[in-house]
Amino acid sequence: MTNRPRPVSLFVASWLGLLVMTGCMPLRHAEFRKMFSKTLVSARHDVHVAEWQVTQQDFPNLGEAPWSIRKRTLRGGVQDGVDLIEVDNGELRFTVIPSRGMSIGVVHCGDVRLGWDSPVQHVVHPRHVDLQDHGGLGWLAGFNEWMVRCGVSFAGHPGEDGERLLTLHGRIGNIPATQVVVSVDASPPHRIRVSGLVQERIFKFASFDLWTEISTVPGSNVFRIEDRLVNASSYDREYQMIYHANFGRPLLEAGAKFVAPVQRVYPFDEYAAKDLKSWETYLGPTRDYGEQVYCVEPFADAAGRTQVMLHNKAGDRGVAVRYEVAGLPHFTLWKNTDTEADGYVTGLEPGTGYPYNRAVEREAGRVRALAGGGEQRFALEYEVLLDAASVQASHAQIEKIRGGRAPSLVPTAPKKD
Amino acid sequence: MTNRPRPVSLFVASWLGLLVMTGCMPLRHAEFRKMFSKTLVSARHDVHVAEWQVTQQDFPNLGEAPWSIRKRTLRGGVQDGVDLIEVDNGELRFTVIPSRGMSIGVVHCGDVRLGWDSPVQHVVHPRHVDLQDHGGLGWLAGFNEWMVRCGVSFAGHPGEDGERLLTLHGRIGNIPATQVVVSVDASPPHRIRVSGLVQERIFKFASFDLWTEISTVPGSNVFRIEDRLVNASSYDREYQMIYHANFGRPLLEAGAKFVAPVQRVYPFDEYAAKDLKSWETYLGPTRDYGEQVYCVEPFADAAGRTQVMLHNKAGDRGVAVRYEVAGLPHFTLWKNTDTEADGYVTGLEPGTGYPYNRAVEREAGRVRALAGGGEQRFALEYEVLLDAASVQASHAQIEKIRGGRAPSLVPTAPKKD
Amino acid sequence: MTNRPRPVSLFVASWLGLLVMTGCMPLRHAEFRKMFSKTLVSARHDVHVAEWQVTQQDFPNLGEAPWSIRKRTLRGGVQDGVDLIEVDNGELRFTVIPSRGMSIGVVHCGDVRLGWDSPVQHVVHPRHVDLQDHGGLGWLAGFNEWMVRCGVSFAGHPGEDGERLLTLHGRIGNIPATQVVVSVDASPPHRIRVSGLVQERIFKFASFDLWTEISTVPGSNVFRIEDRLVNASSYDREYQMIYHANFGRPLLEAGAKFVAPVQRVYPFDEYAAKDLKSWETYLGPTRDYGEQVYCVEPFADAAGRTQVMLHNKAGDRGVAVRYEVAGLPHFTLWKNTDTEADGYVTGLEPGTGYPYNRAVEREAGRVRALAGGGEQRFALEYEVLLDAASVQASHAQIEKIRGGRAPSLVPTAPKKD
Repeated sequence: MTNRPRPVSLFVASWLGLLVMTGCMPLRHAEFRKMFSKTLVSARHDVHVAEWQVTQQDFPNLGEAPWSIRKRTLRGGVQDGVDLIEVDNGELRFTVIPSRGMSIGVVHCGDVRLGWDSPVQHVVHPRHVDLQDHGGLGWLAGFNEWMVRCGVSFAGHPGEDGERLLTLHGRIGNIPATQVVVSVDASPPHRIRVSGLVQERIFKFASFDLWTEISTVPGSNVFRIEDRLVNASSYDREYQMIYHANFGRPLLEAGAKFVAPVQRVYPFDEYAAKDLKSWETYLGPTRDYGEQVYCVEPFADAAGRTQVMLHNKAGDRGVAVRYEVAGLPHFTLWKNTDTEADGYVTGLEPGTGYPYNRAVEREAGRVRALAGGGEQRFALEYEVLLDAASVQASHAQIEKIRGGRAPSLVPTAPKKD
Repeated sequence: MTNRPRPVSLFVASWLGLLVMTGCMPLRHAEFRKMFSKTLVSARHDVHVAEWQVTQQDFPNLGEAPWSIRKRTLRGGVQDGVDLIEVDNGELRFTVIPSRGMSIGVVHCGDVRLGWDSPVQHVVHPRHVDLQDHGGLGWLAGFNEWMVRCGVSFAGHPGEDGERLLTLHGRIGNIPATQVVVSVDASPPHRIRVSGLVQERIFKFASFDLWTEISTVPGSNVFRIEDRLVNASSYDREYQMIYHANFGRPLLEAGAKFVAPVQRVYPFDEYAAKDLKSWETYLGPTRDYGEQVYCVEPFADAAGRTQVMLHNKAGDRGVAVRYEVAGLPHFTLWKNTDTEADGYVTGLEPGTGYPYNRAVEREAGRVRALAGGGEQRFALEYEVLLDAASVQASHAQIEKIRGGRAPSLVPTAPKKD
Repeated sequence: MTNRPRPVSLFVASWLGLLVMTGCMPLRHAEFRKMFSKTLVSARHDVHVAEWQVTQQDFPNLGEAPWSIRKRTLRGGVQDGVDLIEVDNGELRFTVIPSRGMSIGVVHCGDVRLGWDSPVQHVVHPRHVDLQDHGGLGWLAGFNEWMVRCGVSFAGHPGEDGERLLTLHGRIGNIPATQVVVSVDASPPHRIRVSGLVQERIFKFASFDLWTEISTVPGSNVFRIEDRLVNASSYDREYQMIYHANFGRPLLEAGAKFVAPVQRVYPFDEYAAKDLKSWETYLGPTRDYGEQVYCVEPFADAAGRTQVMLHNKAGDRGVAVRYEVAGLPHFTLWKNTDTEADGYVTGLEPGTGYPYNRAVEREAGRVRALAGGGEQRFALEYEVLLDAASVQASHAQIEKIRGGRAPSLVPTAPKKD
């Protein structure tokens, strides 16, 4: 069923690291020369590849890390027709879901999973998600990804903004990508890249093109998300973006900890204020816990980058998140340590703002506009921490950013108006 | 195009009645040993079988009733991609629609059809039904089944309940099944079973799994619906369920009658109150009739079962409905004897309550909650009555349940608050 | 991939002009005998043809104009699964989109394009359009066709009408056709016809069948839209219909002109009133222009037909629109000469009324009802004008209809209540 590239014998084995695969796109003069580049989806060129794969074995002169990229189309019920890309760099595996706005389904590395167990069990095709449902909460009927972007015209809580009902966390997570390309760099370290274009376009109201790239180096325990948001309109447009990455077991457990170079932290509401002093630690699955949310302003280093970490109780497994603060100045910690059945999960969410309704965010000065024709880049890097030494190293990096400065715990919610 | 099981010669002909078909699921240690069990849809296992069939001829030692089960995928317009299962037990035929919440499309037995002629002519894929449309009445754009379940988080009329717009009759009828299995029991009477799992799951709001089974015995004029509703959440959840079975010609006609062991009957509203004394009889297609609705509390027998019947004017064709009252204590008779073009139809609707909005039903004490992890079973049996003797026998069964007790005709609507 | 008709050798070459193609529908006793008739979509007969084509070369005795008809299914992102029909009459090419209510995507003739460059770049499958989105403006997420019908139960601006939210321009443009047939007449001039049935059917609320036909004669620069709207209900039903045809470059440019036999023209609102005296001329792309809308009552000729025209600045390219005024008494000129990026476009829109909300239109007496079982026909003809002489001829035709009568420029919006 898979549509594999032609056997290696058809290629000129090349130490130049420059191979153009039969059936793949012609080589582009891009930033990086490509070993190959394969278009899996293109609305413009009327392309949709249902099944396909490539593996390191198709390029025998390129090292021993047994990487592979596989494209599948899911079948059955609410996930029928969902596109899925599975990337394995030999050390770390992740899935990308083009049908759901290039969300990342799950990541595995060693015995660590980045992901969670949502009551929503399947990868839901957007046609079965009605964002207007339940007073604008319909987004929750598809919510189970490790990382889903919230935005772009709006993100955050549902509610009226002017005459419009803004639905929870916006549209971008339920828009299928109109273009998807996978490629591997010609030069070492032969970075594997999954690129997608997700377009939120509504005549007179939105002309956002989100150019996404998720990439990793063979054999590495690190991957990157590098996005470019373009406003194709002639006019300034408000936007909001939250990188909603969600963690359950094994990292989340009683005694797990969140670590960050905190400048200021605020409780999202009175319920969160009640437990402000324990905001960085986690309970086990807790009946009637619901969710407690904290709003964080992190310190950054001289290069404008910050780092946060979630690690388990023993401090020997974790994840470090490094990102550029300029584009994502606010950070939300979503603690939802409710029962396993109802979703035991925490969200680490760098964003342009906090997840209040856009009307609230605008009043607080946290809604930015992108100029007509302008663009905004977002860059995040996730490192899976597989032992105590790695967790300690991440601690040290965070401490270095903090630079001895004390965090300010503000007892009330951040400015709302 | 059909994907038939392998020819009989590949099987060990077996008087043990135990055959596991090639390509089918491994035999489960279920309540009933299976002659075969075929998974047609499984989101979990990435399965969707577009076309398939099995017939009695594939099992030559198993009697002469020419039963068959066929799976098709409908094509064209609003029904493109709809899954349909056609079961013929040799005497009675019915269709099951996995794409539409395991609704039953139509039933035929002899010259009797259970079904109706809706202005909605095709089997509409849920992606073309917007439940929010028209003030929450969008459900009506797909409504033409013989039997559609209303529920599960809510059923009944659209309207606000707290801050949410509840849409007409809920979501379950427009959610595709995530798992569908057909099987035939290994032991006589070799019951044919169509099983499906329909999941209404929304993070934080709903974790309902509806395990449905529609079954019939070869050569019989009877079929059963046996459903199990599971609340997979840790928390109590309100639910509503109405089995909305709809009848047009040939059973419905001027002079057709509804028969039930009525304890109490109430008009749904003033318009129904006006004609309370003729509530059990039907007019022919009547211009400007609209609909009259009656709310019934039936008597049950010592085993907790009741029986109702619809029969034609001559009293020689009908349908008897037997069901357990504990799970479905309320019954709604929907009389919509409007013009043929606009839908000449009556609904016999056992339910957890009446089809008022959930807010009204809750006030009246008719909304139940299912405990976290709990389940509720629903069991209904439909018998197609093909002659006067069968109709008379059903009359006698209903009289026996009534036990000489007089019905109470209450002139006003049931308790609303 | 294409499913071509059998080779010509299988046909009896026929100067009778009567060929029934293998695999096509049996010849119908229709108004016009058919050279062939091919069903591409039929929900009733479970037909969906993914890929197919026929060309003039399959009928060698039928003249030299190299016409062709091609059916494709689009792939990739939001357009995955969209049906598209491409007709080329040898001189003029157009696309029909069955998946989107038989809209016409784009028309080309010589160096003239009828169409525009919407920020919405792809042909969006209706499953990715949520009409309820953004306060009922979701229709704009799929809006990029040359011609889209607005209606049928309602058209015009979103807003409440009674208890219902009416969404922008109604449902018909986002309902897939349930039947599509292409045919070529047996007799000269061998008219090519694309016929479709689009059904807006909602139990108790709508039973509209829109029978559409788009046709052209090989080698011609003219095509027709002939629609028949049937109310299959027993009851009178209000309806609205607007033929929303949209033009960007090359016809629209600074100095382009709209020409019509105007009886009365009103500004849609105060913003349009401000520029009433230049209402018939166009600016180039203009920042912050937004849209100005004018409501026109045209004169008709003795046969009840009128003609309007859009031509470029030089007056050597244009389009003439001829249509029957009885069914479409009102005409809307939508001037949206905003920036290229945000949609530089003008709409020429014959309609049953103006694009105010239906509640406003009803108050103004512009909402008609169609009797139960009744029908209303709409007939429009578009001629692409390829030189100055053709533009001048159209001018003369319009002047003849005007008959020397002066237009009345009313300074305020048309009657609203």
